[in-house]
Parts: sequence; C-alpha cells; structure tokens
Amino acid sequence: MATKLVTFEDGKGPPRAGALIDDGRRLLDLAAVPSGPLSGRAPDMLSLIEAGPAALEAARALAADPPSAAVLDAGAARLLAPIPRPRRNVFCVGRNYMDHVAEGDRTRGIEKSELPKYPQFFTKAPECVIGPDEAIPDHAGTTQWLDYEVELAVVIGREGRDIPAERALDHVWGWTVANDVTGRDLQRRYGQWFKGKSLDRSCPLGPWIVPAAELDALDTGIRCRVNGETRQDSRTGKMIFDVREIIRHLSVGFTLRPGDVVMTGTPEGVGYAMQPPRTLKDGDVVECEIDGIGTLRNTVRAGG
Amino acid sequence: MATKLVTFEDGKGPPRAGALIDDGRRLLDLAAVPSGPLSGRAPDMLSLIEAGPAALEAARALAADPPSAAVLDAGAARLLAPIPRPRRNVFCVGRNYMDHVAEGDRTRGIEKSELPKYPQFFTKAPECVIGPDEAIPDHAGTTQWLDYEVELAVVIGREGRDIPAERALDHVWGWTVANDVTGRDLQRRYGQWFKGKSLDRSCPLGPWIVPAAELDALDTGIRCRVNGETRQDSRTGKMIFDVREIIRHLSVGFTLRPGDVVMTGTPEGVGYAMQPPRTLKDGDVVECEIDGIGTLRNTVRAGG
Repeated sequence: MATKLVTFEDGKGPPRAGALIDDGRRLLDLAAVPSGPLSGRAPDMLSLIEAGPAALEAARALAADPPSAAVLDAGAARLLAPIPRPRRNVFCVGRNYMDHVAEGDRTRGIEKSELPKYPQFFTKAPECVIGPDEAIPDHAGTTQWLDYEVELAVVIGREGRDIPAERALDHVWGWTVANDVTGRDLQRRYGQWFKGKSLDRSCPLGPWIVPAAELDALDTGIRCRVNGETRQDSRTGKMIFDVREIIRHLSVGFTLRPGDVVMTGTPEGVGYAMQPPRTLKDGDVVECEIDGIGTLRNTVRAGG
Repeated sequence: MATKLVTFEDGKGPPRAGALIDDGRRLLDLAAVPSGPLSGRAPDMLSLIEAGPAALEAARALAADPPSAAVLDAGAARLLAPIPRPRRNVFCVGRNYMDHVAEGDRTRGIEKSELPKYPQFFTKAPECVIGPDEAIPDHAGTTQWLDYEVELAVVIGREGRDIPAERALDHVWGWTVANDVTGRDLQRRYGQWFKGKSLDRSCPLGPWIVPAAELDALDTGIRCRVNGETRQDSRTGKMIFDVREIIRHLSVGFTLRPGDVVMTGTPEGVGYAMQPPRTLKDGDVVECEIDGIGTLRNTVRAGG
C-alpha cells in the first residue's frame, strides 16, 4: 500500500501535513512526532517537501510504523488539497494525449490532426486550488461550457534548471491527481488559455500525494467519471510528452522549485468534444482517478 | 512631484518599503516611522498595500513631510523591484497596441491585421522579477532571439471579482514600469506563451510605484531605448484594451488580490519586428520609460 501524504485540518491549530494510515481510518500527524521530519519547521506540506529527501524517507517510515501518540481518528479531521496553496501558479501542459488533440481539433472542423512538436505551457493561479470533496462552482454567469480534465500532477522536490530528461525523475517528489476545470468558451475566446483555465476554485487537487519512489506513474491508468459514467479512460503512458520530457522542456532557462505543481495534460473524453457536447452543471459529481494514487471527488455547485 | 514608493535594502535588516525624497538623494524608511503605516506589520511593500487606502495616504503624507529620524542617505541603500517577489505569477496582456499587433503579424506574412476582440492573458513566474539596474541574462544557450517590451504595470490594491470597467480604477493601488523580456523563438515554438515569457530574471520591474491618485496613466508617454536608441515610443492611450477593460476582463470569474501585478502590453517597436530584426545581447542597456513614473534601466549580461 502506497504512502498517502495529506494535508488535514482538525480545528486544533493550523492545517498540517500527515499521512493516512489503516486504510484511511486513522491519520498520522507528522507535526506531532517528536524529532520527526517537521521538528522545528512549519507543520505544512511545503515544509516537508523543502526538508528534502531524508525528511520524505522519515515520513514514509513513520507512516509504516506510526507512533501512537501522533495518531488521530481520520473522522476527526478534514482533508485539504495536499498543497493547499502552491507558492506560485500551477504549471500546466495542454494537448498532451493524441486522442485528446484529435477530439479538440474535430470541434473546430479539423479532421487530420498533427502531432504537437512541443508541449504547450500555461498556468492556473494558486488560489484556484481546492481539496477533495470541496465544491467546484458552476460559474454559470461566467461560462456556458464548464468542463473537466483529469490529469496526473507532479510535485517537484528538487530545484533545477535545464534538467535533462534522463535526470528529470530525480526532481519529482511525488504524484497526485488534478482536475483542470476549464471554461471552454473563455479558453477559446481569449486566445491564450490562462483566462479560461483560471476561474476561481477551478483546480481540484489531491486527495493525497504518493511519494515518487512508490509508483511508476509513467504508465498507469487514468480516468474520469461524471455521476458514475466513465468519460475519460486512458493510460499516462499515452502522453505525447511524458513527465521526463515535460520537466525537460519546462525547465529550459527556467528554474523549477520544490513545491511546484506541474499538471501533465488530459486524455480524450472531455465534455465539449462529446456528441452532443456535455457541460458540467450544478449537482454533478466528478471523480478523477489514477491507479496507484486514488480518487479525487468533487461536486459542482451553483455559484461563482 | 509624484510620490515614489520603493523597496530598498541597506544591509541593516530585511528589504523594506520606503519613499524616495529630495529628488532621489534621500530615502524615507517607512518601517522606521513610529506609529507609521507599517507599525505592527512586516516592513515590506506587500504589507503596505494590504494595509489599505489609509496606509497609502499616510505613506504619501510622510513622503511629503518626512520625519528626519526615519530618513537615510539614498546612496547607502539599493533599490529592489518595488514588489520583489509577487505572491503569484505576474498577469500579462499580449497584443494590446494595434501597431504592435500589425508588426507581429508582418513577421508571419500577415499584411492585414484584425483588431483583437478580447485581450490575451498569460503569466510570468514571480521569481522572474528583478529590480532596477539588475542584470538581464542573455540566455544565450536557451534563446536566439531575446527581446524587450516596455509595459505599464498596474499594482492591484483592492480585492475584487467581476469588476465593472467603471469601477476598475478603484482597484488600482499604483503604477510602475515593467519590461516583458521575451524569448521570441520560444514564444513561437511552444504555442502558448508562458514558456517564452518566463525565462529566469526576465521581468524587470520598477524603479518605484507611483500611487494611482497621482497619475493619469491611461494616456501617458511610454518608450524604450536600447543603448540610447529609441525603439518604442507611444502613448498608453493607444492600448486596444485600456486598464479598465483589462481589469474587467481579467476579473471575470477570477478574484484579483492586493499586491497582484498586471502588465498591460507593449507598443510597436520590438526588436524581432525590426528590419532587419534585432536581438538583445551582452552589454545592451535597456531603458523603459513611462512619463509620470520614471525610467527602469537594466543591462543585458551573458549568462542564464
């Protein structure tokens, strides 16, 4: 069973980093471990990431053999996004699965799609991040075309620039699941994608981070269900630019930092490319799932 | 003479917010004023912005009549970017002056340009920000085509979402100058603009912030010189989407926050559209100037 590193709040102090244990029934409070990986540090996930590889190893060891004094009932806590507020915008890649490129092209009347030669990077503002079970607003007054996109999210652990592909995975701290909620009409209207991609609360992230060493995320199942109906169902191995290539390109002349979150693109099956097109609406339950990580569930609610 | 709000460091404690006085010969340390606008707060510009309109008025009054105990010789300090590290990516608008749209189109063989219907938003990472007189790396190993873009930068003072144009200026705290340094080949190659726009140290900002109330920045002179040669020379009144429209569009479904920096696009005259094209190179001195604010000067240096 993979280590599940979480951020939780329990009404007793600030949100803290921990690990789910006992099949999710209990929770290890990493900040409550004497001489633990967060001793002398802020109790949050960014601190744990910045504490380096030894701290991550210590957290994994503690999750495997939790000291009872630092364990609490999971029912007494609420999970937040594992990184509730990244230090800067979340980095994203567009058009990174060929069947998704093709379905998008078809909505614009293009029948023969070209394989992208370079990844396309855009960002989502850090305050867009919400956690598991938090509501996605339907932004009904803003977009007519709210859509989901399940994505593998990479958490960077080690600073680097001009990172070669063959060393890229050394910079990955862990894996989590993201939903790149998008206002399709805004994305198209504004040309550059930031506007349609950065609506308030449009970046569900979580439910936890699995340490990089515990999962080969380069080829694992990825899917999205809306109200139980499977809409996206693919494998991360079908990425056009895999995680190594994404890190290589993104770090060209640009320093990646511990705690950065990089979303890696979505497979085919998004709502706007369905026949007929489907949009998210009030009450829809969106489940984003990656094998070896878990399921990120959010409900769409009326509001902005 | 407009108030010039700066961030400075003098080797005595952390960087602090202040105001240049006496034609730049002396400097008011706002954190050193007893019962001043930064009393009980962190001494930096983001704290001053978050302290609200009364704090800004207090800072302006103090700059006009500085208490001598809080004044130091400007020569003993170094100016940083007025916001050395914004809390999230800097928001930017592309293709916002018609003559610049046309010159860009011509490089792609388009002779008849269309007026953009919507502004195009992208971002630069907050760590890209550098201050006056800091070196812009030439990124010679990364881009063959480093370019300058003088831009009016807006500092947001009041939180808001879905802000109507007629109230947009109420959300502006101040104005400063920015240089949207760009790797043109990367901008084109990667489709979405983030990659070409977010090279390390590619966002000179400053040299200071002029409070919104002290300048009508909606129609003022804007220009850029390289090694003394005027390359860009226009007026902010020629923007396709003026500051009010930019704030209206950017805040659609998206909350702007105090301390956000919004760059408003560049006029014609960029190097890549010149005949023959010109690129920035080691030793080039780039001066970005906006009438009523001041001049932001940076030198290009070999390196990454």
